[in-house]
Amino acid sequence: MQSMIPDYLAEVLAAVESDTSGELAGYIPELAAADPERLGAAFATVDGEVYGAGDIDTEFTIQSISKPFTYALALSDRGFDPVLAKVGVEPSGEAFNEISLERDTGRPRNPMINAGAITTHSLAGAADLNAAERVARVVEGLSAFAGRRLRVDEAVCASEMEHAHRNLAIAHMLRSHDILTEDPRAVVDGYIRQCSVLVTARDLAMMAATLANRGVNPVSGERVIREPVVRQVLSVMATCGMYDAAGDWATQVGIPAKSGVAGGLIGALPGQIGMATFSPRLDVHGNSVRGVSLFERFSADMGLHVMEVPPAARAVVRSNHVVGAGTEATRVLQLQGGVGFAAAERIVRELVDTAPEEPTVVVDLTMVSSIDDVARRMLLEVARRLTLDGHEVYLVDPESVVPEPDPGDGGRVTVLDDVAELVR
Amino acid sequence: MQSMIPDYLAEVLAAVESDTSGELAGYIPELAAADPERLGAAFATVDGEVYGAGDIDTEFTIQSISKPFTYALALSDRGFDPVLAKVGVEPSGEAFNEISLERDTGRPRNPMINAGAITTHSLAGAADLNAAERVARVVEGLSAFAGRRLRVDEAVCASEMEHAHRNLAIAHMLRSHDILTEDPRAVVDGYIRQCSVLVTARDLAMMAATLANRGVNPVSGERVIREPVVRQVLSVMATCGMYDAAGDWATQVGIPAKSGVAGGLIGALPGQIGMATFSPRLDVHGNSVRGVSLFERFSADMGLHVMEVPPAARAVVRSNHVVGAGTEATRVLQLQGGVGFAAAERIVRELVDTAPEEPTVVVDLTMVSSIDDVARRMLLEVARRLTLDGHEVYLVDPESVVPEPDPGDGGRVTVLDDVAELVR
Amino acid sequence: MQSMIPDYLAEVLAAVESDTSGELAGYIPELAAADPERLGAAFATVDGEVYGAGDIDTEFTIQSISKPFTYALALSDRGFDPVLAKVGVEPSGEAFNEISLERDTGRPRNPMINAGAITTHSLAGAADLNAAERVARVVEGLSAFAGRRLRVDEAVCASEMEHAHRNLAIAHMLRSHDILTEDPRAVVDGYIRQCSVLVTARDLAMMAATLANRGVNPVSGERVIREPVVRQVLSVMATCGMYDAAGDWATQVGIPAKSGVAGGLIGALPGQIGMATFSPRLDVHGNSVRGVSLFERFSADMGLHVMEVPPAARAVVRSNHVVGAGTEATRVLQLQGGVGFAAAERIVRELVDTAPEEPTVVVDLTMVSSIDDVARRMLLEVARRLTLDGHEVYLVDPESVVPEPDPGDGGRVTVLDDVAELVR
Amino acid sequence: MQSMIPDYLAEVLAAVESDTSGELAGYIPELAAADPERLGAAFATVDGEVYGAGDIDTEFTIQSISKPFTYALALSDRGFDPVLAKVGVEPSGEAFNEISLERDTGRPRNPMINAGAITTHSLAGAADLNAAERVARVVEGLSAFAGRRLRVDEAVCASEMEHAHRNLAIAHMLRSHDILTEDPRAVVDGYIRQCSVLVTARDLAMMAATLANRGVNPVSGERVIREPVVRQVLSVMATCGMYDAAGDWATQVGIPAKSGVAGGLIGALPGQIGMATFSPRLDVHGNSVRGVSLFERFSADMGLHVMEVPPAARAVVRSNHVVGAGTEATRVLQLQGGVGFAAAERIVRELVDTAPEEPTVVVDLTMVSSIDDVARRMLLEVARRLTLDGHEVYLVDPESVVPEPDPGDGGRVTVLDDVAELVR
Repeated sequence: MQSMIPDYLAEVLAAVESDTSGELAGYIPELAAADPERLGAAFATVDGEVYGAGDIDTEFTIQSISKPFTYALALSDRGFDPVLAKVGVEPSGEAFNEISLERDTGRPRNPMINAGAITTHSLAGAADLNAAERVARVVEGLSAFAGRRLRVDEAVCASEMEHAHRNLAIAHMLRSHDILTEDPRAVVDGYIRQCSVLVTARDLAMMAATLANRGVNPVSGERVIREPVVRQVLSVMATCGMYDAAGDWATQVGIPAKSGVAGGLIGALPGQIGMATFSPRLDVHGNSVRGVSLFERFSADMGLHVMEVPPAARAVVRSNHVVGAGTEATRVLQLQGGVGFAAAERIVRELVDTAPEEPTVVVDLTMVSSIDDVARRMLLEVARRLTLDGHEVYLVDPESVVPEPDPGDGGRVTVLDDVAELVR
Repeated sequence: MQSMIPDYLAEVLAAVESDTSGELAGYIPELAAADPERLGAAFATVDGEVYGAGDIDTEFTIQSISKPFTYALALSDRGFDPVLAKVGVEPSGEAFNEISLERDTGRPRNPMINAGAITTHSLAGAADLNAAERVARVVEGLSAFAGRRLRVDEAVCASEMEHAHRNLAIAHMLRSHDILTEDPRAVVDGYIRQCSVLVTARDLAMMAATLANRGVNPVSGERVIREPVVRQVLSVMATCGMYDAAGDWATQVGIPAKSGVAGGLIGALPGQIGMATFSPRLDVHGNSVRGVSLFERFSADMGLHVMEVPPAARAVVRSNHVVGAGTEATRVLQLQGGVGFAAAERIVRELVDTAPEEPTVVVDLTMVSSIDDVARRMLLEVARRLTLDGHEVYLVDPESVVPEPDPGDGGRVTVLDDVAELVR
Repeated sequence: MQSMIPDYLAEVLAAVESDTSGELAGYIPELAAADPERLGAAFATVDGEVYGAGDIDTEFTIQSISKPFTYALALSDRGFDPVLAKVGVEPSGEAFNEISLERDTGRPRNPMINAGAITTHSLAGAADLNAAERVARVVEGLSAFAGRRLRVDEAVCASEMEHAHRNLAIAHMLRSHDILTEDPRAVVDGYIRQCSVLVTARDLAMMAATLANRGVNPVSGERVIREPVVRQVLSVMATCGMYDAAGDWATQVGIPAKSGVAGGLIGALPGQIGMATFSPRLDVHGNSVRGVSLFERFSADMGLHVMEVPPAARAVVRSNHVVGAGTEATRVLQLQGGVGFAAAERIVRELVDTAPEEPTVVVDLTMVSSIDDVARRMLLEVARRLTLDGHEVYLVDPESVVPEPDPGDGGRVTVLDDVAELVR
Repeated sequence: MQSMIPDYLAEVLAAVESDTSGELAGYIPELAAADPERLGAAFATVDGEVYGAGDIDTEFTIQSISKPFTYALALSDRGFDPVLAKVGVEPSGEAFNEISLERDTGRPRNPMINAGAITTHSLAGAADLNAAERVARVVEGLSAFAGRRLRVDEAVCASEMEHAHRNLAIAHMLRSHDILTEDPRAVVDGYIRQCSVLVTARDLAMMAATLANRGVNPVSGERVIREPVVRQVLSVMATCGMYDAAGDWATQVGIPAKSGVAGGLIGALPGQIGMATFSPRLDVHGNSVRGVSLFERFSADMGLHVMEVPPAARAVVRSNHVVGAGTEATRVLQLQGGVGFAAAERIVRELVDTAPEEPTVVVDLTMVSSIDDVARRMLLEVARRLTLDGHEVYLVDPESVVPEPDPGDGGRVTVLDDVAELVR
């Protein structure tokens, strides 16, 4: 049997291939000379599987798709406060090259517009790095996201430097506000090198999958960034990633995303998947025309919109019954599925409503597929309260979904591998 | 046993109670005269349970919290295109009372700023309603979200009308662009009545829960809006709900939300919960000071941020083994947990990698707690491909998580209630 | 002999007649129905002579040309401070219908944009006038400028009210900032009546001539406004009169001016002339196409640019000689031409350089055509200093260009009708 | 006798001396270290006399006062069209360092804001100059205005270059729009050298007097720029010279002016005088506090406001009488004073109204102190028409105020030195 995912990708590529609208980025010859017909799409799963169709191994420059990853590096290397002090997180509703600095402070509105991205570049790596070391840190960091050693396209880089007047203007403006504290030319030079890193759609899918996988590269297993940084980066991609089309994207696609002027486009869905497309012709917002179409299809076909209400789950309490009688009576709650706050609330309510009078209460987690932190804490608090009410409490947890259960102050639980250990 | 949720709510209220910073909305006497010490918080689950602490039954005016709900009504009553033609979805990065119209068209940037909300009000109900009928439609719609008959505070309403010059300015400007096509005064009057609807924190939590519950009121069971409208409304709340603090909120709280100048604040998490707080003192953005603190705690304590990577689930393929041998050999895949695209991909991959040679393949869904549409389609495609490869395919699905399975063109599956029916 | 001025006017009208570019104001049917071919030009001198060619007796609505005159009335009726507190004097560089309010105060940038003009209307007449009385005051004031009883075009007025949404928006915005303190609808209604006053090019030339003539209507002799108000109004016309083409106008035409959307255009040169043209087709700035061409010709042909350096005058000291000898010796300075600060400085210098030793000094003003206040004061100070130096000082001033000369503290002058009275 | 002008200057300096409000420009140490108490004022007449009081020989850097003069040089060296294509003339209503570029073209709004001034610098001298040659051209040009060889303050210049980030930002932005076509750093370097030219209040008064004197340095007699350039520069100073206080200045002072951040301030009144003050403390607009006060006094005390209505002149027609009778009858019009358009109109009207029947008409210009071009043409046209009507026409013009009079087509005039030559 063959997987249907490559078939699906090939099918959607075929569906958009005839759309030749849009224009190549024309501000430097190297981009204007790109092959406009290139088209590829790749998915990377959080355990490292890559599916692709079309031109997924063609190299092109990463351009603005480097922005969220460098933002992640800056947050990692400097911490949240120093970065937030210099770059905001508010959507600007403006085009990528708008200056969009806060009136008094000169702080760029967000790290996805050029002003913010230039500032972010200057915050990657330790504060005492020189310009070349900073570029090395960024290229090394982008490589860690991709899981292979990436390199700079020197021709594009040189050409961009010759047309960097707007970015130099922005950098000098930032320097005048002391948002940048280094030589603006050196920072722009480094930023352009960052943007000139060569990637493939396959690389980009893996980079996105590293975000989706809590900051750990699914193949190399390297933790590139910590989880709070992932959350911050995805949040900013969700609100500011698509420039002045951010709201359209948020409503119609609903996947945290970022586009680049060379035709790349990525999306990352937390816990699920990294996606990337490549098609060089751009719309008026500077986003890949066919890339946007592809993501609209991905979102619609696969129900990936972050505001999609998840499917109604089977009741978390699979059964609630009593075994035995008298002092031997045991109340057994068999749970199932994923347990988050809402499911935990339902479990708590079941027990409150049931008001168990049996001396023993067993919560059977065998069929629970996942449980999050708050649900874990709620279950332990239930156990504590049942203990205080005089019950003996057992968790059946053969795979330790609740590791080292400690209900705290006055509570006590005993862990079993099988309900049969207790109930005959 | 008592539920710990009311305890939790009481605890977080106590934690923020001492914060008396911020100011009452002062532009009309009725709001300036509110009791600044009021404080309440309520949760409503998607099956209708309400938890609360503090002043959750005190009535106050809904104000801007009416905006997302009226937007939902307009989308329902008129359809997406007519509404999107008149009101955009882009974050403005501006304060609630900025005019923020698109330069040439005069289209308001989004439905959460006043210009967009006034326009949205005019689009609620059928096009041929008169002003009073439109207000009736809106109040009836808000009531349906809340699950009880709401009413207008006539004193607040009258007072707001006297201080409505900015809104009248906006409405006349909209009229001059033909975004409004009716008498601007009548529309503003209706909009102010909409904002003067009296609600409690309990009502607001239920209204939010109706969004979280795919548009169906959890108690009354009434479908108030359809799912695509829910998704649209939540998306816009996520990007534009908190005005010029939208980015801060998106990164720090990460819950689609909306605040009102009378001190209300709601949040809705798709499939999980509706939340509401009430505390009248406002920060410079016009958001409730203690309300913002409470939501920051809710998000952090309960891991409710939409960009939170969900907990790693137990492997979706619980077991993959062969029973019997030769022509009797049966490959059994036992699945578990919730199955979305990522899990379905994993199942597909398992089968592709396994390349089963056994004549019979059984996919056991007994322990699957939920399955979404794309996963269902992928499973059926797997079944089809296995059939074409010469296998006999069975689904064990006692609770019909895959109702009426039809793998299509050349495929065939047989549904069993128990794997034991086949495998002895 | 015939005057060549009507010939000149006819000639320039003929020169621009073939230019049919531009569009009629189309926002109300009454303006859109105007005869686009109408063309007229009129000059009114400061002593009341009117020259004209073409359609100078056709009535049309005054529109924005009412703005500087109503500003003059407001300054007269309320004084400078209350008006400046509500309306600024800074050019906005924006179109006429931009809102352009100062960020915090809501004060309109200047009285020539609609926001400022609406505010100005509300400041005409005493503070306790009702809306109808205010309109009456404005129409009466405009009539005084024109020297005949003007009336409102009720059809245009009614039609404008139906399309007044942008002005209503502006007025409500002004009301929300307490720049307007009355009912915004009543103020807009009054403002539209002001704009609907019917005038001819002849009227407009006379109104402009009233400004040029220090605020006194050249024909009726009525002082409509005081000189400081004239100066203020002309200054604001010079910097803000032509909206976003103010700089082009200031450099190329250099005449304080104001245009109206019905096709009128006026210019006023202090002390010299009032000018008006009428041609309804407008350019993108809302100024009459042929009117602008005509004024460019007037300015170039007649050297009327306010920054034109005036022609070099013949030396103010026509002769400086001594008559008689010994104790009879008399130093005679014969002056000529207009004497302002620069000429007075020259006279002072002549005397300082001459260092007259003759006992008697005669300053002969017979051939002085005009003398301004500072020059008068300088001459008297010269006389005082000469007296203190021991000279006997005489002014020959048969026409009293220096009335009641009093050199003050220690000075003394004797006035003669003819130098021959003293010098034989 | 002593002139009272130095006394006046000393008196007004004394009046403002106690005002120590405002702040030194603090952005570079060299300016922050200036002596804040310095105070001086100088007047230069159009024939080269300089009056001064206080610190008029203290050198300081010219800063933004170089802008109008460099604009004049650019207009001279390149012509109007190339300069206007790159720099507008519209007031921006914004602070000096606002970017204020036109949305699509990137053209700076006017030459008085930094963006316009940097562009203007690049347009001084021939297009093929290198950066050093351009600076040399500008310094040489400023020197020609001042009438002495000026030099650059290298310390200030070096220090400004270190803090030039905002100007570099502006220059790179201009380069990105192809408004600048050279290396932005070199242009900013040159611009800063231009701003670092050392001048005294005496120099500035002379530079202003060169503008007032039609572009000819009153002392050296060198024609620095032509008259149309003077008019353009004065017009732009009048509307844009005082940044965001342009309207206040235009109404209250009414003298074309320019301020510099080192404390200089100049004003130029066409045909009359150049003025300069020096006092380093600045107001929030960046204008010298005491400088502004001094100019307010100059304007009020001396009636120098450009919108001041000039004093009513004595009637231009001094007498209109007939000498002789019959075929000997001669109509004599004796004129006096300055003759511009308004006076010429009065003369024409006198003759039209008089409808002379005498065979001979004499126009006696002996007492005419000045006559401008349009008046000259009108007089000659009068002569032509009188000739055609059969009159013999004589001009009495001993000082040739109408040189080589040629009334054209069919007209004929005879020039006399004295009316007595004709009339006995």
